[in-house]
Amino acid sequence: MNPNLQITPDGRLRHLLTLEGLEPALLRQILDKAEELDAATQGPEKKLGLLRGRTVINLFFEPSTRTRTTFELAAQRLSADVLNLQVSASSTSKGETLLDTLKTLEAMQADMFVIRHEASGAAHFFAEHAAPGVAILNAGDGRHAHPTQGLLDLYTIRKHKGDFRQLTVAIVGDILHSRVARSDIHGLRTLGAKEIRVVAPPTLIPAGIEAMGAKVYHSLAAGLDGADVVILLRLQKERMLGAFLPSLGEFHRDFGLTRERLRHLKPDAIIMHPGPINRGVEIEGDLAYGERSLILQQVQYGISVRMAVMALILGAEA
Amino acid sequence: MNPNLQITPDGRLRHLLTLEGLEPALLRQILDKAEELDAATQGPEKKLGLLRGRTVINLFFEPSTRTRTTFELAAQRLSADVLNLQVSASSTSKGETLLDTLKTLEAMQADMFVIRHEASGAAHFFAEHAAPGVAILNAGDGRHAHPTQGLLDLYTIRKHKGDFRQLTVAIVGDILHSRVARSDIHGLRTLGAKEIRVVAPPTLIPAGIEAMGAKVYHSLAAGLDGADVVILLRLQKERMLGAFLPSLGEFHRDFGLTRERLRHLKPDAIIMHPGPINRGVEIEGDLAYGERSLILQQVQYGISVRMAVMALILGAEA
Amino acid sequence: MNPNLQITPDGRLRHLLTLEGLEPALLRQILDKAEELDAATQGPEKKLGLLRGRTVINLFFEPSTRTRTTFELAAQRLSADVLNLQVSASSTSKGETLLDTLKTLEAMQADMFVIRHEASGAAHFFAEHAAPGVAILNAGDGRHAHPTQGLLDLYTIRKHKGDFRQLTVAIVGDILHSRVARSDIHGLRTLGAKEIRVVAPPTLIPAGIEAMGAKVYHSLAAGLDGADVVILLRLQKERMLGAFLPSLGEFHRDFGLTRERLRHLKPDAIIMHPGPINRGVEIEGDLAYGERSLILQQVQYGISVRMAVMALILGAEA
Repeated sequence: MNPNLQITPDGRLRHLLTLEGLEPALLRQILDKAEELDAATQGPEKKLGLLRGRTVINLFFEPSTRTRTTFELAAQRLSADVLNLQVSASSTSKGETLLDTLKTLEAMQADMFVIRHEASGAAHFFAEHAAPGVAILNAGDGRHAHPTQGLLDLYTIRKHKGDFRQLTVAIVGDILHSRVARSDIHGLRTLGAKEIRVVAPPTLIPAGIEAMGAKVYHSLAAGLDGADVVILLRLQKERMLGAFLPSLGEFHRDFGLTRERLRHLKPDAIIMHPGPINRGVEIEGDLAYGERSLILQQVQYGISVRMAVMALILGAEA
Repeated sequence: MNPNLQITPDGRLRHLLTLEGLEPALLRQILDKAEELDAATQGPEKKLGLLRGRTVINLFFEPSTRTRTTFELAAQRLSADVLNLQVSASSTSKGETLLDTLKTLEAMQADMFVIRHEASGAAHFFAEHAAPGVAILNAGDGRHAHPTQGLLDLYTIRKHKGDFRQLTVAIVGDILHSRVARSDIHGLRTLGAKEIRVVAPPTLIPAGIEAMGAKVYHSLAAGLDGADVVILLRLQKERMLGAFLPSLGEFHRDFGLTRERLRHLKPDAIIMHPGPINRGVEIEGDLAYGERSLILQQVQYGISVRMAVMALILGAEA
Repeated sequence: MNPNLQITPDGRLRHLLTLEGLEPALLRQILDKAEELDAATQGPEKKLGLLRGRTVINLFFEPSTRTRTTFELAAQRLSADVLNLQVSASSTSKGETLLDTLKTLEAMQADMFVIRHEASGAAHFFAEHAAPGVAILNAGDGRHAHPTQGLLDLYTIRKHKGDFRQLTVAIVGDILHSRVARSDIHGLRTLGAKEIRVVAPPTLIPAGIEAMGAKVYHSLAAGLDGADVVILLRLQKERMLGAFLPSLGEFHRDFGLTRERLRHLKPDAIIMHPGPINRGVEIEGDLAYGERSLILQQVQYGISVRMAVMALILGAEA
């Protein structure tokens, strides 16, 4: 894939496909913009006029209420017109190809597409074929990337822990199938995190993860030891049926975060999770909304981060 | 359930869960506000700015096009941003609990949830756990309550018949399964209706209905005799399969409103029904839109009443 | 059907049900208005205030993502509030009749209904029963009519080829099942096209098409000979199972447009298709977005034409 596809010749964000290859200054610009928009939407009236009259199309080839909802709210709060298309129910079932779908919707003068697809690389494909002036936001493509989730994780960490260079971050769970883990690792490395760990049984660790800059741990206690931030990943239950994969009970026994295991972390460590959580699997139920957990704050920050990306791409001339 | 859950310490409406326990002055305030908003939305431009920038989430665990649509229009006409979530298709199917759903959507800075659920008490559960500043509107929970339908029925009666203290109101049909009947009875009693009757075969009358202030009739002729208002309930066909329940034909023969049976009512009596009607079951087809019927007006008033509740709860500071 | 149903006594458009019977001046007024709105929505902010506070309900009894989407965008860009109702999932499944559905939605103070239905005449039925001030737009009824598709085809031809009186237009494909063909023929005849041809195997030509003013061709080469405009129709694969109908392969062999066959057309001829295309059936894949094809422009014009119709009907007093 062309690493420069998402950047304009003068260095601005044109699409958001992956955090891989984005410069630190650009990531910081997005986080700063999110902070500004987060502050601007704290009152009862949460609507800004930045994208009035623009059309944002949520094009979801894979269902996801939570992610679609946050993108829809982000666009609404920027005053864009939003259209939701769940494509299993659309004309692709009549034989229209992906490209025909893109070109047809572009012809409706859409300014931005938010795309979720089960195939890795789908968002890149759209970006390669998008007309000038049409932006693509990747809302999750296969196992590849989920860059707005990565950005909201970075935002959460920066807001609550400050300087990345002092931080040890442990990512725990199904690294193998997780696009979130990949996006987090790219972002954390770019912003200079002191240490990035992935913690999982060997069957849930993908090949090549160390080359991305992460240290691999197969013991939870060792992986959490002295960490400032722990990011739990959602276990995709439907993917946990392989002969060599742990059962949900085994996973919780060996890798679930419990109150007892918090002692391994630093005393002021924070707990994150992209949601929705599987209570009693990745985390003990009452920890999820406990004082160290930022799981709900992440949801709120996710809207600000998505607003920031939309505003930076589409509102550049404003 | 805590009867004061829906009222603030200074006596304002905070949630709307049930009409039970609401003071007459508060009910009248809602009806007055609905009248004001009904008048303000009679022109071609039906949009008011009261809730601009607020987020209303329709959270429907049970499908209902009609009720959802009226809440959506009510919120749109107050300039709120509206999000529709049909939750069978959402992440609860991935194991997220009800509470996780509420907390996650709250974190998206939703101001109000309109909730329909098949379980009685679901709206109370949400209200008990809602964050400060987040309002819950009950759009129907099991057999328990449907307070905005009750309010629109009160609005219809007041507008067309005036003083409740002069009125005999007959509620006819499946009282047993009806949340509408319960909400109507609470509201009518609070506003001092002269007489409230429930008219149905014994198998469709719930225990304890007389303690709520209603007189029970098993004969339609006697139940309608001298009534000013007749409220027909929708027969839920899918619930009419019990061995001791009447067939649809038997029900219509004994309890269906026909042109011939109108003679029992007062000459200026009005006919109401929450819709959608089963033609030829609860009512003869051509009576439904006849001159005494207010069934369509009820739909219109339903939007004004829902706007009023939303405006009173969220727009209090305005 | 009453031909005057869609025109007010003073000659303005009241509903849009079919192009049949509309005067040339009225068609030209719609095309002129579309041109004006097309120009007004070329900037990044594509929103006009013409229908602010109006309610448009998309009432689709048959799924169609593409058509619904263009109507939704058209209404949004005029600042109307839009409600989408897919009626298989609605209360008609509870026994409510079509008329009850219409009357109920009217009572919600809807200003306009955009209706798609599998039954020919459904839109007329709604228009006959609509309350004063409520407008019906036909978004496709059975095999009968699809007037906004006809209008956007006329708009495309006028914009790219100019004077209809000089033009030979060939409509190729499944004329039998096509509401688009019927609407195109009515419109082209009204605006004085020099020659209208329908080109298809005998089994896909309906009786009476010549009486509508079209010349029938069973040979593609002869049908295309000297044409200025070729309109390809979508082959409804699910309808191509009859014993006397060609297979998809046979159809493409005999009636598919290929690069080789372009030589029959005039050198500056344009290629149109209502979409979505079946690549390799009606048209060779790489012709679809080639230099002579206006297939994507048609999508864009479709929004302007729908905005024009909505604005002319609802915005008349403005």
